[in-house]
Amino acid sequence: MSMLKNPSVKYRPFPQVPLENRQWPSRTITHAPRWLSTDMRDGNQSLIDPMDADKKARFFDLLVSLGLKEIEVGFPSAGATEYDFIRGLVDQGRIPDDVFVQVLTQSREDLIKTSFESLAGAKQAIVHVYNAVSPLWRKVVFGMEPAEIKEIARTGATFLRDQAARFPQTDWHFEYSPETFSTAELDFSIECCEAVMEILQPTTDKPIILNLPATIEAATPNIYADQIEYFCRNLPNRDRAIISLHTHNDRGTGVAAAELGLMAGADRVEGCLFGNGERTGNCCLVTVALNMYTQGVDPGLDFSDIDKVIQTVEYCNQLPVHPRHPYGGELVFTAFSGSHQDAIKKGFAARETQNDELWAVPYLPIDPADLGRSYEAVIRVNSQSGKGGFAWVLEQDQGLKLPKKMQAHFSRHVQELADELGRELQAADIWTVFQKTYHLGEEQRLQLVDYEEARAPDGTRVFAGKIAVDGEVRSVSGRGNGLISSVVATLKDGFGIAIDVRDYAEHALQAGSDARAAAYVECTGPDGKVIWGVGIDEDVATASVRAILSAANAAG
Amino acid sequence: MSMLKNPSVKYRPFPQVPLENRQWPSRTITHAPRWLSTDMRDGNQSLIDPMDADKKARFFDLLVSLGLKEIEVGFPSAGATEYDFIRGLVDQGRIPDDVFVQVLTQSREDLIKTSFESLAGAKQAIVHVYNAVSPLWRKVVFGMEPAEIKEIARTGATFLRDQAARFPQTDWHFEYSPETFSTAELDFSIECCEAVMEILQPTTDKPIILNLPATIEAATPNIYADQIEYFCRNLPNRDRAIISLHTHNDRGTGVAAAELGLMAGADRVEGCLFGNGERTGNCCLVTVALNMYTQGVDPGLDFSDIDKVIQTVEYCNQLPVHPRHPYGGELVFTAFSGSHQDAIKKGFAARETQNDELWAVPYLPIDPADLGRSYEAVIRVNSQSGKGGFAWVLEQDQGLKLPKKMQAHFSRHVQELADELGRELQAADIWTVFQKTYHLGEEQRLQLVDYEEARAPDGTRVFAGKIAVDGEVRSVSGRGNGLISSVVATLKDGFGIAIDVRDYAEHALQAGSDARAAAYVECTGPDGKVIWGVGIDEDVATASVRAILSAANAAG
Repeated sequence: MSMLKNPSVKYRPFPQVPLENRQWPSRTITHAPRWLSTDMRDGNQSLIDPMDADKKARFFDLLVSLGLKEIEVGFPSAGATEYDFIRGLVDQGRIPDDVFVQVLTQSREDLIKTSFESLAGAKQAIVHVYNAVSPLWRKVVFGMEPAEIKEIARTGATFLRDQAARFPQTDWHFEYSPETFSTAELDFSIECCEAVMEILQPTTDKPIILNLPATIEAATPNIYADQIEYFCRNLPNRDRAIISLHTHNDRGTGVAAAELGLMAGADRVEGCLFGNGERTGNCCLVTVALNMYTQGVDPGLDFSDIDKVIQTVEYCNQLPVHPRHPYGGELVFTAFSGSHQDAIKKGFAARETQNDELWAVPYLPIDPADLGRSYEAVIRVNSQSGKGGFAWVLEQDQGLKLPKKMQAHFSRHVQELADELGRELQAADIWTVFQKTYHLGEEQRLQLVDYEEARAPDGTRVFAGKIAVDGEVRSVSGRGNGLISSVVATLKDGFGIAIDVRDYAEHALQAGSDARAAAYVECTGPDGKVIWGVGIDEDVATASVRAILSAANAAG
Repeated sequence: MSMLKNPSVKYRPFPQVPLENRQWPSRTITHAPRWLSTDMRDGNQSLIDPMDADKKARFFDLLVSLGLKEIEVGFPSAGATEYDFIRGLVDQGRIPDDVFVQVLTQSREDLIKTSFESLAGAKQAIVHVYNAVSPLWRKVVFGMEPAEIKEIARTGATFLRDQAARFPQTDWHFEYSPETFSTAELDFSIECCEAVMEILQPTTDKPIILNLPATIEAATPNIYADQIEYFCRNLPNRDRAIISLHTHNDRGTGVAAAELGLMAGADRVEGCLFGNGERTGNCCLVTVALNMYTQGVDPGLDFSDIDKVIQTVEYCNQLPVHPRHPYGGELVFTAFSGSHQDAIKKGFAARETQNDELWAVPYLPIDPADLGRSYEAVIRVNSQSGKGGFAWVLEQDQGLKLPKKMQAHFSRHVQELADELGRELQAADIWTVFQKTYHLGEEQRLQLVDYEEARAPDGTRVFAGKIAVDGEVRSVSGRGNGLISSVVATLKDGFGIAIDVRDYAEHALQAGSDARAAAYVECTGPDGKVIWGVGIDEDVATASVRAILSAANAAG
């Protein structure tokens, strides 16, 4: 089996839009649109196992908590389960005063009637009627001429108007979707919308929502933007309509289409959290909103605890959020590559000294903390990581800030382990190999039991300590210009271990509440080989002593 | 915790590109680009568990089988595992004659030397050198001025030239990436590329590959297209360069950016299968290629057995392909919604009578069969499905084509089950409830044992049969104008069951190799209620008899 070598016998390129003097590519998105979540309708109907009433209620509450003000709650005429849930939202007073619930219905009198009844008594609501308008649907699905299709729209609008009048206690708003807009003749979509507007008589104060679905995504996203710009320019009484986008993701460009559509003049975006929805999904509201956020535009939606959002959505949809999903995926703030890790570390370091709040960290387009994510997960270590990664992990996990030369020394050991295990190294793996490499465990040849340090009359320092050798405690002492040299002398005199200290660094440990210190010594052993020692202790002086003993264990 | 209400203190909008007389929005993609898979490099380095040698070999063979002619196989100077694998590809002769393998290296002499050594002896190869050029990287990561950054590029190019000369038996090609291109000053990226071209002296016959990464995706995809168009226009000796795109997906628009970038003049696309890669992933090659395919453009890549591709990629990457991933996801050809199912069914039906090969099925932008997917999975039934879906499933699964009125009758039973189970209905669920509803199982009150049919002298027909009633076989007979009326008469005379046949339909069963038939009868029972009966048999006449008995069981 093989793909058609000439797919043009079966597929045709999407035609260009006759748009003169195109404006959208020079525009940017400067403010948030109105958002409509269709998670509980378009999203729900495409689930393998649609939500039960409990899951729907959870999803509704989540959407409200995120700041959604327009929520499509279902298709009440589809069945008793849908109707009862929607009716319950109203009857139980679950809908906040500033939230508009929306229901979808086909353009049939009985269905529209049921739809209004499901929401009667709500403070405000949107009833959304649709009919498909494109040539393929007209021909294959309905067997109708354009005039008949337009008549369906007109009839639907009439039902909307008449049914709304039955329940004057609710502030009714209307939405009309020329379904399959993206594959229909633009002028015909405009005609249908115009016909609906003629009947519903929207005003600038109470405009109609005209929702323009890319029911299937059939072209590159610039084409959808052209269609939106054309529609906005040519719709009579444009100021009496809210232009709404409803993209799908069949070509993997549903988010792009929504963004370019906003630049082309739209006012509102319909979509689902993490891009759920029919087939390849709807436009992902999380992505579009956070894309705005990273450009300094307040999206008006709150994803400051994105893991909680993911948890609820995965529970309700029974579909996973992919590890690489923008902003939400488990791996999207993770750097495994050594050069990436190194750059990120430098970015965080630079941030500590910068004078403004601007976010500028290499490879991180957004501060993970803004989404409630911690920095610990940013850098992870595998066999591709090089030396930047484990250093970061050690710092995050143990508070250790290894000197640069020591990182190079330790990296060989980490790389060996990564190659040997053939999997990602956990912080615990790295800590284990670190303790082993630098003789930090309990069972070392030389082990400090106790010590005292005194200044001799000549100004030198005298180290007098008890050191266990292979478990046997010995009292030893030595003299030097300072603590370190006195310990070095002790080791030479007492155990015949000749090491030379070349460099030394020490810092307080940030991790944990106890103020411990870590000391690092770079030494040369008897054979001239470089040895590193590490000591950790609650006392800064003792940490140094331990570091020398750590080096001595390596040398011995 | 809440999101910044004024994110502009922390984030800034991406600046516009100074591009006069922008051309790309009026262009379309008319031919396939050169493709470079970076699955084994950018993809691999971002895996939680990078591939071992066996997985790498499998992935390489997969890429070759799909038609990839340029494959980035790794970062040979990163470690022995990488080097040995790449060296092995050459030494074992695994690289087909028309495939270019590519390796990545930083601009350092020792690394470049190792990179050439890893591929020496290959028929042809691409060595890809990069250095980051954007202000943030210059300042935070390198602490260098632009001139120093350009010098890194120049030095790298010199090493490329000199090392290539050491191994003249291989046809070496060069790729240079000004990393972080998308967030760098365009003129500076051009300067760096120009500096590299001065040294490597590409020709129109042997051009250099200039790869322009959106290392992080930092703006809407139209901005990337503007950058590409600007670059193509302003690069001196444009005809001596292949302009390559390397997008990431941090804003969920990596595919869009690659597509608009092609319209803006690029020649080549780098990416990974199913959008693997650092963080949110690289551009998805499957999606870009199949997007072209659905516009009638041969992508030159073969995804005719997409499930096999997914299987290998999931095995090697140990990451899932999301159920809604365009083209590849489990759910992307699936319709749960009743109106969608209905439209799809009509689309398939219309296809049987159309005169050309053009693909035009509602809600399906591509023929699933072109990807090796079957139609059976297209329509799936849940509580949101309405009546179109189960009818399709019964037809696909059992070969039954229910009359429209009977679909309405059966839909109640399906809906009840879907509501009761609260999960997707499998074909087996639907078949079980169908058998139960229409009394098709073994344990029915009335069961046909045997029968004969004869024409009476007066032209009427006589049915003489053995029918088991609650297990007891009785011989009964009846007379009528035809077979059906004679069975109806038998039921009335023999068992006192009065049913009236109002409509009848029968068809051969397509499923299975045995030529069976299915008969459907619409009846009214003694109380005037509509009853449906179904009979299935190898003999068309017997199927009708069984259908009447099925109705009688319902009536009785």
